[in-house]
Amino acid sequence: MDKLNALRQQLATIVDLEAATALLGWDQHTYMPRGGLEARVRQITTLQGLIHERMASDELHELLGALEADTGKLDPVDARLVLVTRRDVDQARRLPAELVVRKAEATGRALDSWMVNRPRGDFGAWRPHLEEVFAIVRLEAEALGYEEEAYDALLNRYEPGMGTRRLRAVFSELAEGLVPFRRQVLEVSHRVDDEMLSRHFDGQKQWDLGLRMLKEMGYDFNHGRQDRSPHPFTTSFGLPDVRITTRIHENDFRAGLFGTLHEGGHGLYEQNFLPEFDRSTLAQGSSLGIHESQSRLWENLVGRSRPYWNRWFGEVKELFPAQLSGVGFQAFYAAINRVKPGLIRVEADELSYNLHIFVRFELELRLLSGDLAVADLPEAWDSLMESTLGVRPPSPVDGCMQDMHWADGSVGYFPTYALGNLYGVQIFNQARREMPAMDEDIASGRLLPLKDWLTERVYRPARSVDPGELLRLITGQDLSPQPWLAYVKNKYSELYGLD
Amino acid sequence: MDKLNALRQQLATIVDLEAATALLGWDQHTYMPRGGLEARVRQITTLQGLIHERMASDELHELLGALEADTGKLDPVDARLVLVTRRDVDQARRLPAELVVRKAEATGRALDSWMVNRPRGDFGAWRPHLEEVFAIVRLEAEALGYEEEAYDALLNRYEPGMGTRRLRAVFSELAEGLVPFRRQVLEVSHRVDDEMLSRHFDGQKQWDLGLRMLKEMGYDFNHGRQDRSPHPFTTSFGLPDVRITTRIHENDFRAGLFGTLHEGGHGLYEQNFLPEFDRSTLAQGSSLGIHESQSRLWENLVGRSRPYWNRWFGEVKELFPAQLSGVGFQAFYAAINRVKPGLIRVEADELSYNLHIFVRFELELRLLSGDLAVADLPEAWDSLMESTLGVRPPSPVDGCMQDMHWADGSVGYFPTYALGNLYGVQIFNQARREMPAMDEDIASGRLLPLKDWLTERVYRPARSVDPGELLRLITGQDLSPQPWLAYVKNKYSELYGLD
Repeated sequence: MDKLNALRQQLATIVDLEAATALLGWDQHTYMPRGGLEARVRQITTLQGLIHERMASDELHELLGALEADTGKLDPVDARLVLVTRRDVDQARRLPAELVVRKAEATGRALDSWMVNRPRGDFGAWRPHLEEVFAIVRLEAEALGYEEEAYDALLNRYEPGMGTRRLRAVFSELAEGLVPFRRQVLEVSHRVDDEMLSRHFDGQKQWDLGLRMLKEMGYDFNHGRQDRSPHPFTTSFGLPDVRITTRIHENDFRAGLFGTLHEGGHGLYEQNFLPEFDRSTLAQGSSLGIHESQSRLWENLVGRSRPYWNRWFGEVKELFPAQLSGVGFQAFYAAINRVKPGLIRVEADELSYNLHIFVRFELELRLLSGDLAVADLPEAWDSLMESTLGVRPPSPVDGCMQDMHWADGSVGYFPTYALGNLYGVQIFNQARREMPAMDEDIASGRLLPLKDWLTERVYRPARSVDPGELLRLITGQDLSPQPWLAYVKNKYSELYGLD
Repeated sequence: MDKLNALRQQLATIVDLEAATALLGWDQHTYMPRGGLEARVRQITTLQGLIHERMASDELHELLGALEADTGKLDPVDARLVLVTRRDVDQARRLPAELVVRKAEATGRALDSWMVNRPRGDFGAWRPHLEEVFAIVRLEAEALGYEEEAYDALLNRYEPGMGTRRLRAVFSELAEGLVPFRRQVLEVSHRVDDEMLSRHFDGQKQWDLGLRMLKEMGYDFNHGRQDRSPHPFTTSFGLPDVRITTRIHENDFRAGLFGTLHEGGHGLYEQNFLPEFDRSTLAQGSSLGIHESQSRLWENLVGRSRPYWNRWFGEVKELFPAQLSGVGFQAFYAAINRVKPGLIRVEADELSYNLHIFVRFELELRLLSGDLAVADLPEAWDSLMESTLGVRPPSPVDGCMQDMHWADGSVGYFPTYALGNLYGVQIFNQARREMPAMDEDIASGRLLPLKDWLTERVYRPARSVDPGELLRLITGQDLSPQPWLAYVKNKYSELYGLD
């Protein structure tokens, strides 16, 4: 038990350093004066180096070894703590410290360059940074090790138990159902008018509306807050302080609204881990896919649903009477669900979103293997967008420079967004089966039954269960694209009057 | 030279950890949701422990030893770096790690209790925390060591080279000139009407005015920002990111205005250290007294001066026409300089301010020695306030609970405020001698010549020179209360028509 306490103490120090690092990042993207960037990147690099040093230390490694020799004596939660910590420690020990520091520095510079060069679409200026990041990521994959493909090593960090081969199969089954259905919808979706969403919506009113929606879904402002940032994100400094950010566009009502619900979903997850997991390696999502299932569930399955707008449409119309003058419920509901080929992932409708992920998945596989050179990325991106989504970016701004993930060294991350969509529907279907009044509740502004159900099934377990097992525990099913396909077919057939 | 680089590398890591700790503190007092407090105190405690561990490490100690054996080979700046780092390392090595952690935890709790209990004046609830802090501070003084008095050990941390005996002599000489003069002023100062400063001044307008004043004095918003906090402070995450906070009272025009100028002075100092000192132990003020000389210089010697209001009065009157209707320059100038017995240090006029410090100095000496029990502090405070300032606090809210310094474990700190007043006038007099047009410049809104002069003489040298020597280098004088006494006698005799 002394060893267990020693482990907890070591992890508490690491988690506190991670919280400080997260705060350095939060501040960088919210309030930091521009001139502070270079120093900030150095500070984050230093702290990441110290975290790695501690995670890879012989002391922690040996402590785990002693506990592993005797796991029979541990209760299941402690045994799980030892198991997931071992995963983290093994990963850390496989990565040389120089590589960790090199990555922190390179991604700091690449993100900075991205922020400066994306608005002007200067891929050439960003390119060397991205090349360096992919060179590092390749070394990471080799250092981490894998059985079948280098990509497995990266994917596994975000989605434990998921392999590239399985992912290809899931995506291929998903595409098989999605692509022809989306084509069918696109033939009629131009009939939907969504012009009213681009009228001028006062920023402060949008902000206040978002706060009300967050409160209604149970986001706890005593243990969180929402700030503005150019790119919305959720971050946590421990269970008692989980923050989200959003951006408001006065000429696009969707951006702030759905961004807020999306991050609110991430925030709910992080705020509701089992409290005893705080300050340990268990206080994390089961996987990024499960994490994303929660943001997408609140954003789409709740936030773009009929019942939700039965509850909110009247109020929103009162709040923006001029903008929504003459707009009825059905027109509004159709507008926020309009399927439209577009260039931008984060603005994509539900039917197009996963296709954006397919593009990124294929390209990062090729970039990793070296089959595609970074220099050739813009052309490859544009071609693949055209063949997959039917649109060709006029410039890298809205093409291969639109996301920050690669600059951040997060390769193998994008697929978790599509997995989140699939997990989300499987989990949501189960919630509806167990709570037959759910739609009525949502339509009456009672979101807490759903939040409480999710808390019990998804949020509290946190990282104590791996994603595949978690899904089976909740739904009795394995991951499958079929429930998601059934959901979109049902929703969009009804919306567009398809048979 | 390898050893010098190794030293710089070690210090860079420590300074980065200090920056992260400072950000955790800044956030705690500006944006943190209330529910995050407990976790935040733990995080700060963890980081302070890691900083102490590194500062007290044998590795750093031995590195310094090797460099000290060969100081002849170092250039003067590097020799100074070794010297001040040795001071920090010796202090750290004298403090047992348990005591450092105990202090971080105790002060975290004491500050939290202060925040909760001060508004309701519940000294009894705060008392056990304060007792624990003084118990720790006593152990600190013993661990640090001293020649004459335990208080020396504490004072020296904030004001290198200053001893309790010398401080008593300086304060006694100061009191000798100040007390009778203040009595003389108080006989007539009631004639001054300052009621207009308590009218309603719109918060946003005050805020915008403060930002303009900060810009005019040369505070760099590309490397800093101002936020709101209940208690104004300045903090730094390295030279490129120095932030200040202020509070605005809509019914007291003075609070935001002079608080902003005060913190602006601290901010200018921190923004203008010699850039090559960044990320080292040299990137600090020469002492807290010198630091305070800069905040008080901008707040009082500039901000409460005739020339400054020659520049600003017209604009302020335009900004607040109703509030200042019928108020002339002389009436306004007299009002912001009104001498009035009051309970609150941070609101004190220039003549009363140092008396507040005398009260705290005497009481903390007695609390440290054990001559005064914490339980008896309220009564001792009230009596001493009455005999020193002529006012008796009706409750601890505005009595011994008004400051957070003791809760924070900062004993020996208060005297540096009075020293700052004295240093400030000595330095300002020299500036005026060298820049005969200074008053005209200030009256025309040209503050940059003064800022540049201070940058050269005070800010850039940072911690490369100790306070006594710095003062001699700038003014050719030693610390003395006489210039300050001459300044206040001149200013207030003129203001109140004394001979």
